Amino acid sequence: MRVLGIDPGLRNMGWGVIDVDGSRLSHVANGTCHSLGKDLGARLLSLHTQLTDIVGRYRPDTAAVEQTFVNKDGAGTLKLGQARGIALLVPAQAGLTIGEYAPNSVKKTVVGVGHAAKEQVQHMVKMQLPGADLTGPDAADALAIAICHAHHTASSGALAIAMAAADARVRA
Amino acid sequence: MRVLGIDPGLRNMGWGVIDVDGSRLSHVANGTCHSLGKDLGARLLSLHTQLTDIVGRYRPDTAAVEQTFVNKDGAGTLKLGQARGIALLVPAQAGLTIGEYAPNSVKKTVVGVGHAAKEQVQHMVKMQLPGADLTGPDAADALAIAICHAHHTASSGALAIAMAAADARVRA
Repeated sequence: MRVLGIDPGLRNMGWGVIDVDGSRLSHVANGTCHSLGKDLGARLLSLHTQLTDIVGRYRPDTAAVEQTFVNKDGAGTLKLGQARGIALLVPAQAGLTIGEYAPNSVKKTVVGVGHAAKEQVQHMVKMQLPGADLTGPDAADALAIAICHAHHTASSGALAIAMAAADARVRA
Repeated sequence: MRVLGIDPGLRNMGWGVIDVDGSRLSHVANGTCHSLGKDLGARLLSLHTQLTDIVGRYRPDTAAVEQTFVNKDGAGTLKLGQARGIALLVPAQAGLTIGEYAPNSVKKTVVGVGHAAKEQVQHMVKMQLPGADLTGPDAADALAIAICHAHHTASSGALAIAMAAADARVRA
């Protein structure tokens, strides 16, 4: 079962792909999409194109997107929301199930506490994905989201649902 | 020159299409996309599919999307942002120029004052688009956004840019 994690952002959108085999996790790839273009439509289109390419290249079976908003900043939250709309649309277009996790939930799953520092998250991501070369902070966060999704799907039976959906796609 | 106006919303996304011939405006169509599906990815995909269908059916030359955020409500603004990401992506995918206008700017252009009531906006939309059957409040807002874009593009020379872009698409 292959999981795509996405850390949405308009300027930098982190992504990470891991393979899950029972309780064993392994790293596949990670990176960051940068939005190109001078206006907002062009930037969102650029993110959509890059993310669609990643889904086509790595063919994940399920996806997870971080759920957050910028406190006390409507304009910042709106920007993030627009990027997050693209981050959710691309896996939906590929027919994937999509998990959504708050940052504290991701940290709690990966590190054990909800208020872990960024460095601590990166350390635990490296520990759980030996050999992974973290290409940047947003990519590391995206891998943490993928790990969180792997743990939650394994424990909730949602992995079976995602596998059935993947199986249905193969047969279709 | 054909203009598509979009009033973004996750639950209800209003849209309106008008034709602009010099200073003469005429109504083409208006409606509201409702997001279907039980999870957020499915709802955004549903909006994307409906809006892509509208762009394909009416073939606008340029688009305009309302620029707003929900004050003091991060979760509401994030939802709106996600829907707005789709509203911007679809015209960008069709290669259209996209105008963005704050609600006050739309009201000022259509009614003459920035703080007009909703009923006043609807009244002026009907006045400027004789024969238009307004299918709902979000669709009426979308037509107001399209009217605002028509006025701004006509006065700024952006109409010529949009027409050149449309011409380039025809030749491509």
